[in-house]
Amino acid sequence: MPAWSLGELARLVGGDLDGDPALPIRGFASLESAGPNDLSFVAAAQHLDAARRSAAAAFIAPPDLDLGPRPVIRVAQPYAAVAVALGVFFPPTPATPGVHPTAQVAGSARVAAGASVGAFAVVGERAVVDRGAVVHAHVFVGPDCAVGEGSVLHPHVVLRERVRLGRRVVIHPGAVLGADGFGYVFAGDAHRKIPQVGGVVVEDDVEIGANVAIDRATLGETVIRRGTKIDNLVQIGHNTEVGADTIVVAQVGIAGSSRIGRGVVLAGQVGIADHVEVGDGAQIGSQAGVHRDVAPGARMIGTPAMPAERGLRALAAIGRLPELLRSVRTLDRRVAALEQRLGEGGSTSGG
Amino acid sequence: MPAWSLGELARLVGGDLDGDPALPIRGFASLESAGPNDLSFVAAAQHLDAARRSAAAAFIAPPDLDLGPRPVIRVAQPYAAVAVALGVFFPPTPATPGVHPTAQVAGSARVAAGASVGAFAVVGERAVVDRGAVVHAHVFVGPDCAVGEGSVLHPHVVLRERVRLGRRVVIHPGAVLGADGFGYVFAGDAHRKIPQVGGVVVEDDVEIGANVAIDRATLGETVIRRGTKIDNLVQIGHNTEVGADTIVVAQVGIAGSSRIGRGVVLAGQVGIADHVEVGDGAQIGSQAGVHRDVAPGARMIGTPAMPAERGLRALAAIGRLPELLRSVRTLDRRVAALEQRLGEGGSTSGG
Amino acid sequence: MPAWSLGELARLVGGDLDGDPALPIRGFASLESAGPNDLSFVAAAQHLDAARRSAAAAFIAPPDLDLGPRPVIRVAQPYAAVAVALGVFFPPTPATPGVHPTAQVAGSARVAAGASVGAFAVVGERAVVDRGAVVHAHVFVGPDCAVGEGSVLHPHVVLRERVRLGRRVVIHPGAVLGADGFGYVFAGDAHRKIPQVGGVVVEDDVEIGANVAIDRATLGETVIRRGTKIDNLVQIGHNTEVGADTIVVAQVGIAGSSRIGRGVVLAGQVGIADHVEVGDGAQIGSQAGVHRDVAPGARMIGTPAMPAERGLRALAAIGRLPELLRSVRTLDRRVAALEQRLGEGGSTSGG
Repeated sequence: MPAWSLGELARLVGGDLDGDPALPIRGFASLESAGPNDLSFVAAAQHLDAARRSAAAAFIAPPDLDLGPRPVIRVAQPYAAVAVALGVFFPPTPATPGVHPTAQVAGSARVAAGASVGAFAVVGERAVVDRGAVVHAHVFVGPDCAVGEGSVLHPHVVLRERVRLGRRVVIHPGAVLGADGFGYVFAGDAHRKIPQVGGVVVEDDVEIGANVAIDRATLGETVIRRGTKIDNLVQIGHNTEVGADTIVVAQVGIAGSSRIGRGVVLAGQVGIADHVEVGDGAQIGSQAGVHRDVAPGARMIGTPAMPAERGLRALAAIGRLPELLRSVRTLDRRVAALEQRLGEGGSTSGG
Repeated sequence: MPAWSLGELARLVGGDLDGDPALPIRGFASLESAGPNDLSFVAAAQHLDAARRSAAAAFIAPPDLDLGPRPVIRVAQPYAAVAVALGVFFPPTPATPGVHPTAQVAGSARVAAGASVGAFAVVGERAVVDRGAVVHAHVFVGPDCAVGEGSVLHPHVVLRERVRLGRRVVIHPGAVLGADGFGYVFAGDAHRKIPQVGGVVVEDDVEIGANVAIDRATLGETVIRRGTKIDNLVQIGHNTEVGADTIVVAQVGIAGSSRIGRGVVLAGQVGIADHVEVGDGAQIGSQAGVHRDVAPGARMIGTPAMPAERGLRALAAIGRLPELLRSVRTLDRRVAALEQRLGEGGSTSGG
Repeated sequence: MPAWSLGELARLVGGDLDGDPALPIRGFASLESAGPNDLSFVAAAQHLDAARRSAAAAFIAPPDLDLGPRPVIRVAQPYAAVAVALGVFFPPTPATPGVHPTAQVAGSARVAAGASVGAFAVVGERAVVDRGAVVHAHVFVGPDCAVGEGSVLHPHVVLRERVRLGRRVVIHPGAVLGADGFGYVFAGDAHRKIPQVGGVVVEDDVEIGANVAIDRATLGETVIRRGTKIDNLVQIGHNTEVGADTIVVAQVGIAGSSRIGRGVVLAGQVGIADHVEVGDGAQIGSQAGVHRDVAPGARMIGTPAMPAERGLRALAAIGRLPELLRSVRTLDRRVAALEQRLGEGGSTSGG
């Protein structure tokens, strides 16, 4: 790999350099594994010891961390700088443009020049794969789907019919978009299926994790708005809308017809009931169960979810319930004893 | 799309018509998106405002909702009628019968005339795909499997060996039936695998969601009985039996050797421990953890699961634990003060 | 199937025989389904009734169970013996060696003689499939991956680039190894992706369930150590390390950069937060939420997780919260009444 100069890297990540701009840098690595030609990073003071022991040639670090005489690129947001450095030293491998000879592309489908369709991929009737998009091996793009410009579908992604993806959408292996929503009506003696005839819309710059399931709407659309990031094994029900720039951590389940705002954070394994509205900027703690609307900006934890400040104390108090029960039983006895004595006293004085 | 008359539609959904039977209807849509040639529906009074604003030509509604002079098909069960209407206006696209030239069908397998096997599908030795069944692209049907009449396996479904599906079973993308059950014995210094040599049986009219995992039995069969509906990302362990007409919502986990009754509802993210029996008609609330048998008809919530009536009050009370702890501390001080005064009084009276 | 003699089977499972060693045995089955030529097993006294009713010719059983005059192979660990017996009577079907004509193996990849690559499998550039390994149909083995000797990748497994598997690793259908870790930095007005350029390392004798997701590291490696067994639908985040001989039950989620020790048990649906360390031999109960380090050997339950002994009583006490609240309100009234009377008394005596 060709070397970069430390000065060039400081400019690329938008930082101020303390050190020799001519220093050659050949790689980027963690503090533990960096060698003497590598750039590394220190995000916070707790890693200073590891930094001092590190063989790295130089560091990305926030402005105030004391790394002694060693070369440092100072940045306000270390992780943003790390993101840039990783892109510099580990550029993504470009996909081979064109349609693999084993792929099955329907006659009425349109694959833009420069797009890539991998081995054994299937692209259905009237589907569109836009320019720069990458449809990896074994992907199934159903009829009437759209894969926007620059989007990447990793191996084994399934888009059933009428799923529309915007630009620069990334979907990880095994994710399924457009399976039927879970809708039945119990009619007499059996669950009768309510046909699920709507679609799924995913806007620009959304990323969707491995083995996620996002169901199609009954009617209308299930919608994931611009810039939202969804981790692995998440479930999103039919007709739900997830707002822009929201973070949905692994194994979250969002039931049908819910509305999640923009800039929301749903931590891991959270459950959101159906027809619930979670306001913009709300943050829901891991494993919480949300059955009622959540106000914008609220921080909630627990099941049923409660405001985080109260909730942290409440959940911590659960561990003290056995002592509390004992205290209350003891109090009951003590009060009964007092009542008896006072009752006697009363009857005495009334005698 | 050809028009239906409102009268024809009323007959199809089994409703009583308030309005002109000759009114032509060309589509079916939600209240918000319906146009002047569309039928829509109002399931409950809370949607009356939206109905009044809707441009729909007519509505499906329960008998008692007041929609003024607008044409209404009156039905006792609006969702059952909606299910019919959706089927009328959005008929499913029939699969192309026959075996796709790229599919790999073993010589000893049998694909019925009229069944459909899609691109890159694999059908193993001695497997049977019965008439009218649809095996979509990339599906893997292992050796000795049976896919019953009219069943549909969406893209990327995996049936490992000896999985037997009844008639009209629908399995959504990415679901895996017949992976090994999770069975080990710790022998000396390592977990030794207990071979999982049983099978999976899925009866008629079952629907299974995307990315579900249903493990094969150690010996014998893991069984999903007739008419049961399973949502996405559900886990069902080896040797478990799920009864008929049961609803299993997304991300539920059922450990091995459990027995779930018929007509049960397991809400989202519920966990059922191994060797547990859940009685017919029981309802388990979302995220509940069930470690003991549940009586037929019981409604349970929470972890560990408790009867819903008590549980709702108990879970709501968690949020008040900090105040409760404070109250008990205060009471303790007040009682101590009383004891001290009464103790003094006592000694006085005894002096 | 050829018969074994009961004496041969006793030797194979390492047990002591009570009964005729010449007795021919033709199969192995559960107590309920065993016929008069089958061996069965009784793991514990609670199954003695079923054993007495069973038609089985003989049983595997622990030393102390009284099965009357019927032939028994006595073993200290019945399940270990059952594992052996299942392997004897249900030997796994060997995969056909060689590369299926439809598979796509890159020119620079190496598939050992005797390895098996199934229909529509893809093996990427520079990937290695070692001897005796089985890559089933539809599997995607990305560039620079290694599949060690004797490992088995069931249909529809996805290994993205630079995933390295040791020997005798078994991965069930739909599992995804090497999807990008979930790492973003909020930069100004959008979540900016932190490139995930590390890998995944899976050591010898690991088993990974269906539809599991194990993310690649940001830098460095996500590691699953020797002998660990992972159930279905588990999520393992980037840069996490799971120690040797650990059991991870279905639907567990482990966030990024956590360290799980060796010999740990994580029961179903447990959540482990990021950067948490769980010590060797710890046991975490189902659905627990772990946000802090756990000491070696600790047994924890609940959310937030607490020591199991205390936790069992604490969680059981939640159901009594409504009565507890009532008791405290009553106590408050009783104490107030006492205070009032004593207050009066006090003023009286002071008058």
